[in-house]
Formats: sequence, C-alpha cells, structure tokens
Amino acid sequence: MKKFFSVADVTNLKEIVAEALSQKANPNALEELGKHKTLGLVFLNPSLRTRLSTQKAAMNLGMNVMVMNMDKDGWALETRDGVVMNGTTVEHIREAAAVMGEYCDILGLRSFPSLKDKEADYSEDLFNKFIKYCAVPVVSLESATRHPLQSLTDLITITEYKKKDKPKVVLAWAPHVKALPQAVPNSFAEWMSKAQEENLLDFTIAQPAGYELSEEFTNGATITNNLEEALQDADFVYVKNWSSFKEYGEVYPVNENWMMDNEKLKITNDAKIMHCLPVRRDLELSSEILDGPNSLVIKEASNRVWAAQVVLKRMLESLKSK
Amino acid sequence: MKKFFSVADVTNLKEIVAEALSQKANPNALEELGKHKTLGLVFLNPSLRTRLSTQKAAMNLGMNVMVMNMDKDGWALETRDGVVMNGTTVEHIREAAAVMGEYCDILGLRSFPSLKDKEADYSEDLFNKFIKYCAVPVVSLESATRHPLQSLTDLITITEYKKKDKPKVVLAWAPHVKALPQAVPNSFAEWMSKAQEENLLDFTIAQPAGYELSEEFTNGATITNNLEEALQDADFVYVKNWSSFKEYGEVYPVNENWMMDNEKLKITNDAKIMHCLPVRRDLELSSEILDGPNSLVIKEASNRVWAAQVVLKRMLESLKSK
Amino acid sequence: MKKFFSVADVTNLKEIVAEALSQKANPNALEELGKHKTLGLVFLNPSLRTRLSTQKAAMNLGMNVMVMNMDKDGWALETRDGVVMNGTTVEHIREAAAVMGEYCDILGLRSFPSLKDKEADYSEDLFNKFIKYCAVPVVSLESATRHPLQSLTDLITITEYKKKDKPKVVLAWAPHVKALPQAVPNSFAEWMSKAQEENLLDFTIAQPAGYELSEEFTNGATITNNLEEALQDADFVYVKNWSSFKEYGEVYPVNENWMMDNEKLKITNDAKIMHCLPVRRDLELSSEILDGPNSLVIKEASNRVWAAQVVLKRMLESLKSK
Repeated sequence: MKKFFSVADVTNLKEIVAEALSQKANPNALEELGKHKTLGLVFLNPSLRTRLSTQKAAMNLGMNVMVMNMDKDGWALETRDGVVMNGTTVEHIREAAAVMGEYCDILGLRSFPSLKDKEADYSEDLFNKFIKYCAVPVVSLESATRHPLQSLTDLITITEYKKKDKPKVVLAWAPHVKALPQAVPNSFAEWMSKAQEENLLDFTIAQPAGYELSEEFTNGATITNNLEEALQDADFVYVKNWSSFKEYGEVYPVNENWMMDNEKLKITNDAKIMHCLPVRRDLELSSEILDGPNSLVIKEASNRVWAAQVVLKRMLESLKSK
Repeated sequence: MKKFFSVADVTNLKEIVAEALSQKANPNALEELGKHKTLGLVFLNPSLRTRLSTQKAAMNLGMNVMVMNMDKDGWALETRDGVVMNGTTVEHIREAAAVMGEYCDILGLRSFPSLKDKEADYSEDLFNKFIKYCAVPVVSLESATRHPLQSLTDLITITEYKKKDKPKVVLAWAPHVKALPQAVPNSFAEWMSKAQEENLLDFTIAQPAGYELSEEFTNGATITNNLEEALQDADFVYVKNWSSFKEYGEVYPVNENWMMDNEKLKITNDAKIMHCLPVRRDLELSSEILDGPNSLVIKEASNRVWAAQVVLKRMLESLKSK
Repeated sequence: MKKFFSVADVTNLKEIVAEALSQKANPNALEELGKHKTLGLVFLNPSLRTRLSTQKAAMNLGMNVMVMNMDKDGWALETRDGVVMNGTTVEHIREAAAVMGEYCDILGLRSFPSLKDKEADYSEDLFNKFIKYCAVPVVSLESATRHPLQSLTDLITITEYKKKDKPKVVLAWAPHVKALPQAVPNSFAEWMSKAQEENLLDFTIAQPAGYELSEEFTNGATITNNLEEALQDADFVYVKNWSSFKEYGEVYPVNENWMMDNEKLKITNDAKIMHCLPVRRDLELSSEILDGPNSLVIKEASNRVWAAQVVLKRMLESLKSK
C-alpha cells in the first residue's frame, strides 16, 4: 500500500477488516516488521484520538515515531507554483514534503478544510501535492474531504458487533453548535457504500433537507430526509453532525428533533450507536444512550489502533518488497 | 498500586523510599517490566521537571510514552453531568478519559487549581472523575491540592541526606511575586506528617499569620508563625511560597523578612535546603545558599526520576497480577 | 567530544566527514552505543529539519529522545547573576540547565538572536551559561551566531558531490522579505574557511556592500561585492540571505539582482546549488534551479541526519570513556 487516502486505496474491505482484527488479537506479533523504520505524523490541525492511536499502532509494529504539530499559522505552506514567495508563506510544499520524506519511511498528514472555498477544499490540492512530493507512503490522518482511518475503524467495529450477515447501517445527521466539515460523513458514506457493494451491509443516510452530502460519496446509498423512516430496523446508527455541502459550510436552522435518544432507539432493531467523538452530550446524542448498553463509542475509539496498524503494516510490507 | 494521588495511596513510607533507592542504584534492572506497556501523560497545565522525569522513569522501565499537552483553552472538558453541551466545552470527561484509557496502560494527569473557587478546587472533581472513567491506573502529575511525586521525591532526598535517625524537617513559607497554589506545601505537609507518625522525622511548619494550610494536611505537625523559632536545630528546611487557603488564593502583605538566607541558616543545625523548583533567586531563597554546599535543590530535582519510577513499577506490577 | 558549538570543536574536518559518511552507509550499525542514554532537545525557538534529523540520528544510535519546546515567552529564563527575581523571569539558567543535565546524558539547545543588541547576541551568554551549568555534553541546534550542524552537513554534502579535489565554493547573499540572523552564513563561513586551510576547497563570499559578515568568521575567504565575479568557475553556490552585521539586524535596499537563477548558473562551472531551507522560491533562488538537476537542497537537508549522528556518536564515546 503506497497511500491511504480514500476507500479506493483498498481493494477488498472484508480482507482488510479481517487483517485488522488479527492484529487486534495479537498486537505485538509483528514488532520486528517496523524495526528501524520511522513514522512521521504531521498535524496541520489538532488531534487527540488520531495521534494517540496511530502512535500506538506504530509502536506495536516496532516503529519509531516523530510527531510534528504545526498549525497553519506557524508554518504557512505555499502550494501554488510560479509564485514569487515574498509574502506570508514561509516554505513551499515541494521542499517541505520532500524533506520530511527524507527523514521518514512513512508519513501521516492531517489537514482540515477551510469550509469557505468548496472548490479549493474538494480539490485536495495540499494533500495531493504532499503525496506527490514526499516520495514515501502517506496515510491520511484526516483531509479536507475524508477521514479514512475513522471509516476503516467503523467498518471493523460493525464487523465485530454485527448480529446478522448483512446489518442495516444508518448514518444519521445530528445537531451541533458549530459548522463542522463533511470529512467524517463523506468518508463513512464512501466506505459503507463500498461495503454495500461487497454485500457486507445495507446503507442508509438520513439528513435534513439542505444537508445532502456530495454525490461522489453516497453512490448506492438509500437517502432520506425522514429520520424515523431511516431508523426502522436499523442495526447500527452512526450519529454525526456536518455543515451543508450545497451552501458550502453553512448551517441551516433545523426545527425537527434530530438528536438521537432512547425514544428513537425504540424504532430501531436495538441498534448499536456509534460516533467518531468528540461528542456533544444531549445535543448530538443523549447521555442516556452514551452511558447505556447500546453505545459503542468507546469500543469504536479503541479500534482506531487496529485500523492504523493494518494500514501501517501494509505500507511497511510494501517498503520491504521494494 | 491502582492510583497515586495522595499519601493515602502508600501504606509504608519507609518501604517505598527503600524501593525507590534500589531503582536509583540500578535504573535499568527492570526494563522488561514495562515492555509493550504505554504510559500516557496528560498535561492540562505546563510542565518541565515532572514531564522529563516521569518520561525518563518510564523509559528506564521499558515503557512507551505518549505525551499530550493540552491546555485548558484548547480542550475545554465538561465535567458536569446532565448538561446540554451547546456551549464552549468540546468533550465530556467521561469520553475523554475512557478513550485515553483505551490507548494507555497507565495514565498521568496534571491539572492546576483555579485559585478562585476553593470548594471546586478542593473537591478535586476533575481528577476524581478522570480516575473513575479512564479505568486504568492513574498517577497524579500534580492536582489542584497535591503534588505527590514531588513529596515522595522529597522524602527520598531527606532519607538519602539525613545524618541522624530522626531529623528535624521544617517547611518554611517564602515570599513570591505571584499567587501560587497550595498543592506542593499541602502535599509535603501530608507526607511529612505521615513520616512523623512512622517515626522517621520531626515535622514543623512556619508561615506568616493568614497563610495557614488546610488542617487536613498538617495533622500532627508543629505549626508556628515564628520562622526563627522553627529553624532552631533544623536539619532540613523546605522553602516554598504559597497563597492563602483561608482567604482563598489571596496574597497578604508580609513585612518581616521570610527569605531564607545565610543569616537564617546559622540558626539551623547546618541544615540542608530544599525547594521544588523553579525558584525565584534572592526573593524566596538567597543565591548564596543556592550556590553553596547546603543546597540540595538539584539533587532533589534529580530524584524526581526515582519517585516516578517506583510508582510506575508498582502500577506495572499490579497490571501483571491482574 | 564535550560540546559542538563551533568549528573549533572539531580538530580534523576530513576525518569527521568521513566518519559521518560511514554512518550514512550503515545507519544502525551503532545502535547499541546509545542504549540507555537520553538525548534532551531544548528548543527556545521553533525547528523542523533540525529537530527531526537530530531525533532520527539519536534513534539510529539507540538513544531515547525527549523534546522540550519552550518558546521564550512561556519560559522566561534569567541569565544574569545577582538579580532579585521579582520580575518576569521565572527560572534562572543555573537551575534550569542543571536540572536538564540530571535527566539527560546529552543536551541540544536552540536559541535565536534578538537581532537588536549585537553585543548581547554575539556574547552567546545564554549558550555559554547553559553549557557551563548543565554539566553534560551540549550540541548546538543553532545559536545566536552559529548553526554548526548545518555547516557540517554542508561540508558532508560538498564532499559527496565534488568532482574535483579542491572545488570552488561560493557563499552568495540573496534577497528576502525579512531580517534574518547571520548564524547560518557565519557558521558556513567559519567551516569553509577552515576547510580551505585544510586544503579541501577554495572559498569565496559575495554580498552587497553593507552586508559584510563579522571578520572572525571569514578569515581567509575571498570577499567581493560582485556576484558575477564570484560565480566564475564556481563548483558549489550556497545561497542565503542575512541581515546586516554592521548596522546590526538592518536590511539595506539592494538594487542589483542578487537572486540565483539560470542566467547566473551559466557563469559557473555547472555548479551545484545549496540552501539550508526553508527557501523563498523565486525570491532567493529560482524555481527553475530548485526543480532542476543542479539543486542539492533536498540531499543537503537529508544529510542533516549524518551530521547530527556523527556528533552524537562522538559525544556518546566520550561518555563511555569517562
């Protein structure tokens, strides 16, 4: 594996999930694989779960880890070519990425969207250039439009906890006080759509009108504005807020009650409730659910390690075979 | 050992000091004990000595270490239950602590007091909830009311440098320009009081009127407002500033000279002088003393490693015996 | 080796370069040398390349690494003696350095100049006191006046890519938008001057009038204000901006074109182009050159690892022989 940026970088979902679960069963079995290899984690935006779980995964594989926390202010990267750099950008991504590629065998990168310029965000220009110029395998730690380690984690968790062959999985929009990126729901949608193609599950998305995700991610999904309809017979409900894609980054007022709670849980097939965290209690998701037996959110966060570990494992193997 | 928060978490002071000194004599003897174990250090407030010494201790034991520097602004935790999280707090401690407990085998936490709300600070609500929800052993890296790794260090240092069976130890208030927490003196007082109970030393506290510590920490200590009287025959003088407990967080004007200097040293039994650092030279403690033969401050800081290492060792042993 | 602060700390340049290149050929050959040894990296100013490459070098040698990012605001150090510390400085360098020396076997320190007070900057007071009080070997990660790891890297790179016994090396001033320190050019000049003494190369400096470096660094170099003259027959051109030493920290307007580009490259002997990075594209150095076959900038950055590794190796050896 040379890059892990979207679901397109994985050929067989069932296989990678099985591989991740086998790592989970025996976390240190491959600690020789990463010996003398260095993982560099570059955060242009803050991170808690992603940093810790990826660091842990790398250490399980015997790798060295170097973390670079560089917010965009402190380290303004130029991404355009042909520009005289006499302004505020201090380094061009061509040099920045190439140099990090010299010190690290594998790189991780996190970079959030502006939520102001749809075209720029969805072009994933920064990420693509980073991948191009660093010359080593790159794992996305969340980009402007996707969070693939989270989505792989979610599929692992669904696989672990499903009680039937083909569970019904619902992505349900929820309220929030801030305008959030579409990266997590985009990514979840593209992974679940592919899982549906592979016959692993049925996938439905429920969101208020105006909050439709970009169609490139939701191909094959059942889409509805009716939450109660969507929750019918659901085995897993993935609760998440996002801002509008259409009116890019906007937050429409929503009058109906979209918070997931015990009342709504009753409509489901005793569904397991998922969330990528951090979660706003009693705004996105009720405390009752979070503290009750249907919540998977902590187990899900815990599984971040195995998603990262299987990706790093595959990248290390591709380095060895060079 | 499941938690290390106060002196109550240690049953026998003599024993733990002896164990720490045996670690010091052979720092890497137990490097297999921590293999494949991860220590997570969570700093809600800045740290230098505590971070470095605890990290070093963990590495001596063969552990992996992950450091999380999160100031309270960047990562505002909700600690109250039953609150709709539609304000500035971004994550509830229930989830935050639980997730970190998934990635780490042992956690350290540092969190300073507000110095504005005595009841809130002294309830140690944040710490107690963190311990409760993370589900792994927790070592305090300094809380609102205590700094137990510092106090254990101090007892180790006194044990190493004492010239008689039962030395006289004095905690002496000193001037400062800022309002400082009571955590270090509280903790020192509770450890020395217990050491006095175990017949290891005699313990006296000297502070100006109005600077009395909370009685729950000073049980059994001789307490005086007369510094010269306290210094009589002292074998160790622990110099430290703190703000008022009674008028919580206030700083009263003090007219007498409370800075420890060579004149006052003459009253003592050629006492060794201690301070937890950082120290304000010629305000709390004279340069003369700091640069002279009676100062233990660097040796004391150095011993932070062995205090941390014996605590981590005991926690690792309790993990193994599970 | 007890310190690595300037070229004076190396007796034989040819030898240390050869040693560095032998480490490069076999990066992990000495991974037992640093076992149980800790490197502490103290950054009073930000760092990317220096931190990563030094960390990588230390890990190659089997060392543990602890990084301390402390900007000057957060951790205001007092360096003067005899001062009552009742102001904004929170810790004296005597204690700060001594304590770090207790936790680490080798320390690295980065501290930039103020560019406001020439005498204070060029006294290297902070660095000298840090070296004095920490009591362990210290490697400079860039000081007010020098960046020796960069200069050693540059000599390694020149040695690797030279096509004749005694290449012509030119340090060429280039434009910038900010007032930059003289540390990199000072250091490059003092290393190249010594390399010239050792008959390894010929060294020329070209800068506009008013931008002369301090003579203590340029001893033996050919110095000119005529860039084209300097570039004649050049085998290596080291492009770098710096502010005035004479009118300390000032930036004079320069009307001639001092940016290195393909036109100027034609004057040279098909010279290899170097730069310490980060580089302002099309202001200091043309994109054409940076993206073309004459640029060594990425290889040069990559070599930072081997400069750091040979220095750490020598320091570790001096620890063992104690």
